[in-house]
Amino acid sequence: MAFHYPNGTPYNNHEAPKSKKQVKKQKSIQFGKRGMDFEEEINKSNAYYLSRNTAVIHKKPTPVQIVKVDYPSRSAAVIKEAYFRQASTTDYNGVYNGFYLDFEAKETKNKTSFPFKNFHQHQIDHIRQCLAQKGICFVLLWFSSLNRCFFFSGEALVTYWAEQETTGKKSLPLAIIEKNGIEIQIGIAPRIPYLDAVEQYIQSKKGVAMNDN
Amino acid sequence: MAFHYPNGTPYNNHEAPKSKKQVKKQKSIQFGKRGMDFEEEINKSNAYYLSRNTAVIHKKPTPVQIVKVDYPSRSAAVIKEAYFRQASTTDYNGVYNGFYLDFEAKETKNKTSFPFKNFHQHQIDHIRQCLAQKGICFVLLWFSSLNRCFFFSGEALVTYWAEQETTGKKSLPLAIIEKNGIEIQIGIAPRIPYLDAVEQYIQSKKGVAMNDN
Repeated sequence: MAFHYPNGTPYNNHEAPKSKKQVKKQKSIQFGKRGMDFEEEINKSNAYYLSRNTAVIHKKPTPVQIVKVDYPSRSAAVIKEAYFRQASTTDYNGVYNGFYLDFEAKETKNKTSFPFKNFHQHQIDHIRQCLAQKGICFVLLWFSSLNRCFFFSGEALVTYWAEQETTGKKSLPLAIIEKNGIEIQIGIAPRIPYLDAVEQYIQSKKGVAMNDN
Repeated sequence: MAFHYPNGTPYNNHEAPKSKKQVKKQKSIQFGKRGMDFEEEINKSNAYYLSRNTAVIHKKPTPVQIVKVDYPSRSAAVIKEAYFRQASTTDYNGVYNGFYLDFEAKETKNKTSFPFKNFHQHQIDHIRQCLAQKGICFVLLWFSSLNRCFFFSGEALVTYWAEQETTGKKSLPLAIIEKNGIEIQIGIAPRIPYLDAVEQYIQSKKGVAMNDN
């Protein structure tokens, strides 16, 4: 049941390429029917932003516990036994114009709501910790059946997550995401221009802060 | 010459435990004579800062290209073939009181200077990119034979790196590090209180910014 990646192919992102099976085993991510690999498009958008000096955002490597390494020659260490580890953070972070950005990218085939099971407790905890340090935290939500993408703030996610812990609700209704989130129009370059939504969010926070004073 | 970590020990950081051999192969890090594992102490300091809600700083997992995975059972995917990949960033980043922090930890047995070979071009490039986004970038330098630790700013490192590219100098003299860096006194909890130096650096930058206006 082992699978193989093509050898010698250059990859532009940090991440080892993933087969659909591996991704499913590891993270239960479902790819959209229409063939957009959401994570891959975000990685490309990050590469675009980096090339334009707009932001420095990287996906974190998959955490792996290495148990056994062979050294057949000095130049080629081969990992012969390793295990996937649970991450303690979200997948993406970096810096944009002095702001610390931290986010997860999630997708669903659902058409009317986003299942909470796509999020993990450690991600919520990490978002809470980063918010306490004045980081800009959010999730990018991709409704693959609708071809719609949303920015949803960490504050809002944490609030609704706490709510579902008491109400037992299994998902976040699309109507709430439409109302509290910011829709991202899929483009060409970058494909997922999420920094526009981030900028809008930062400006709206400034407005709130000024009103508070 | 490989050493082993005790099995079953819980690790608080993301990183898989490394054998000395693996670390040497991968990063050419030399451990200090007096037994302080510099990276491990920084990871513990980060855990301390996280537990006190002072900052959220994590070491990035080692990038690994996964080639072959076996699934003997649903719960235990075993990576059977994988390779170390070159990182594109520094090892540590996170958020502290609204600031994006980004740094590398390096050590030397030298007593009078810090060799430039401890740094890699991709780390310098990444630091330049993050500085352009107003991130707080630095390196933590550990002189294991002297038991002395320094904060050295990304701006200064980038400047001296560019200089050595033309002069061919092989190392950064301790005198320059003493003059331009901030010495960190090794403590108990956290062992490496580097955020004190970061705070001092941030305050000094504010002073410069005010003088500029």
